[in-house]
Amino acid sequence: MSPVQPAIVARIPRLCVALGLAAACATALAAGAPADTPAKPKTAKELLDASSPSEWRTPDPQDILYMQLPAGRVVIELAPRFAPQHVANIRALARGHYWDGLSIYRSQDNFVVQFGDPTEDEKQRKSIGTARAHLPAEFTRDAAGLPFDALPDSDGWAPEIGFSEGFPAARDPAAGRAWMAHCYGTLGAGRDVAADSSNGTELYVVDGQSPRALDRNITVVGRVLKGMELLSVLPRGPDPMGFYEKPEQRTPILSVALASDVPVAQRTLLQVLRTDTQLFAQLVEMRRNRRDEWYKVPAGHIDLCNVTVPVRTPPASSTAP
Amino acid sequence: MSPVQPAIVARIPRLCVALGLAAACATALAAGAPADTPAKPKTAKELLDASSPSEWRTPDPQDILYMQLPAGRVVIELAPRFAPQHVANIRALARGHYWDGLSIYRSQDNFVVQFGDPTEDEKQRKSIGTARAHLPAEFTRDAAGLPFDALPDSDGWAPEIGFSEGFPAARDPAAGRAWMAHCYGTLGAGRDVAADSSNGTELYVVDGQSPRALDRNITVVGRVLKGMELLSVLPRGPDPMGFYEKPEQRTPILSVALASDVPVAQRTLLQVLRTDTQLFAQLVEMRRNRRDEWYKVPAGHIDLCNVTVPVRTPPASSTAP
Repeated sequence: MSPVQPAIVARIPRLCVALGLAAACATALAAGAPADTPAKPKTAKELLDASSPSEWRTPDPQDILYMQLPAGRVVIELAPRFAPQHVANIRALARGHYWDGLSIYRSQDNFVVQFGDPTEDEKQRKSIGTARAHLPAEFTRDAAGLPFDALPDSDGWAPEIGFSEGFPAARDPAAGRAWMAHCYGTLGAGRDVAADSSNGTELYVVDGQSPRALDRNITVVGRVLKGMELLSVLPRGPDPMGFYEKPEQRTPILSVALASDVPVAQRTLLQVLRTDTQLFAQLVEMRRNRRDEWYKVPAGHIDLCNVTVPVRTPPASSTAP
Repeated sequence: MSPVQPAIVARIPRLCVALGLAAACATALAAGAPADTPAKPKTAKELLDASSPSEWRTPDPQDILYMQLPAGRVVIELAPRFAPQHVANIRALARGHYWDGLSIYRSQDNFVVQFGDPTEDEKQRKSIGTARAHLPAEFTRDAAGLPFDALPDSDGWAPEIGFSEGFPAARDPAAGRAWMAHCYGTLGAGRDVAADSSNGTELYVVDGQSPRALDRNITVVGRVLKGMELLSVLPRGPDPMGFYEKPEQRTPILSVALASDVPVAQRTLLQVLRTDTQLFAQLVEMRRNRRDEWYKVPAGHIDLCNVTVPVRTPPASSTAP
């Protein structure tokens, strides 16, 4: 589309390199292959392009948060199945415009960005309006009744790993508990030392190597569906924990609102590939055992946090929520 | 030290939150605890402060690269034990000022930044001077004769994981091979489809979730010791693989030089904690099983790429290399 696009495609062989999109690479290479070359296996993009509408899930607009930053919109999906009381509070906070005018006040390299109200003095903190000041810890939940699409791959952190409606999660069948896992893009509710000291006002997003040690130690409330690249590039704070030194270094939050409270025309419509589909299992297998020309040794394994659940803008033909 | 430091410390309880430095948090809390509280276990910082000089390794200046960016210096340690021919070529390229005036031309979110010469036309590419145009693939090496400090933790990617003189690595005893692992900060040599198509000119640094599927598929040449936060915040390119659309969006490289070719007064002196020490094992165990007040459930496990090997500026009393 852009003038440099052909140049980038032509350059791909040299840069297949540290690829991550080996399928795209293989496609680019195949374009120049003789016509009698045996048919290549389908690429991830080709499989997704051929998917049916029923393989996609459209999140409930009441579970979608838009965080508006000067650089653009971050779209977050909340996970009420895992943290119903925190999610209810976050909805109340968003409806009360709690975060509007607050900031991202922490960016720690290879770990998290964090936002909310950095004021320490309880009396000077922004009012939480109708939201609840105290919530129970929601670190884990009953595994019974939870959709869970297990991966067969081993994991040092949990007996079972997989996805629950698109959210990376783990499960302990012996204990009958399940929880969301800390992967890139996971949204959690900051707390003090007491387990039940989070109320959803201070939230963090993981933007580094998956800090799975936090699993079962903090309430996870959702994940970022779109716009991670607006958060992950924020300058790191000089403090060892990434707090900024001066208030003006913080990134202002213009607003955080529920999609259901935003006019339809202003919504960012997104769909998430259903993780209970054969297509999803096939895409995971393609990454577990890469079969394209670039890879010489398929790994035979994938870590939970290496799996990306596809998110798309619905094609023009599908029905808006 | 800075005016806001007391405020940050006072704020820690609220923000222990998504911590990662739980030890520091516990210390801050302990400061306000009554005098008869039982003695706390030592923090990581306290253990490191009490370390002896022999527990630290000073890298050979011939193995250290300084990449000078407008925002500052990135310090890289090369790994000649793993990729001797690539490292020799990279030294020749640095001595020939190959990268000076080139750029970081790719930044893909949750994956890598990549630098070198983006020119596709072979004839128009920058001269590599006395460096070799062709090198063998150095994906793995003989496990015999390699220092290897194994972790006991399970790993889905390799039979054994651990550290070799500070570099995250893996080993397959049955096959008798070892290789460096792709973790945050790993430096690798980009290649085309052919295994032996890298020559060290195009290098990438991992700045996302560990892409361990690349292990044994590409030549890893070193890791970043300092300055990751200068690379990890670079704006992501709009292309799916993170290439910038316009040349002016690239980050210029002022120079890449070997520390041994830089006057001593201009060097960034760094030491790396030896990974064959009891102290290192102790620090890893502290992260594998967090015992501070903030953590409620110790994980009993750590992933290779969750381990940070401490790097320090040598104390004034130690001898400069």
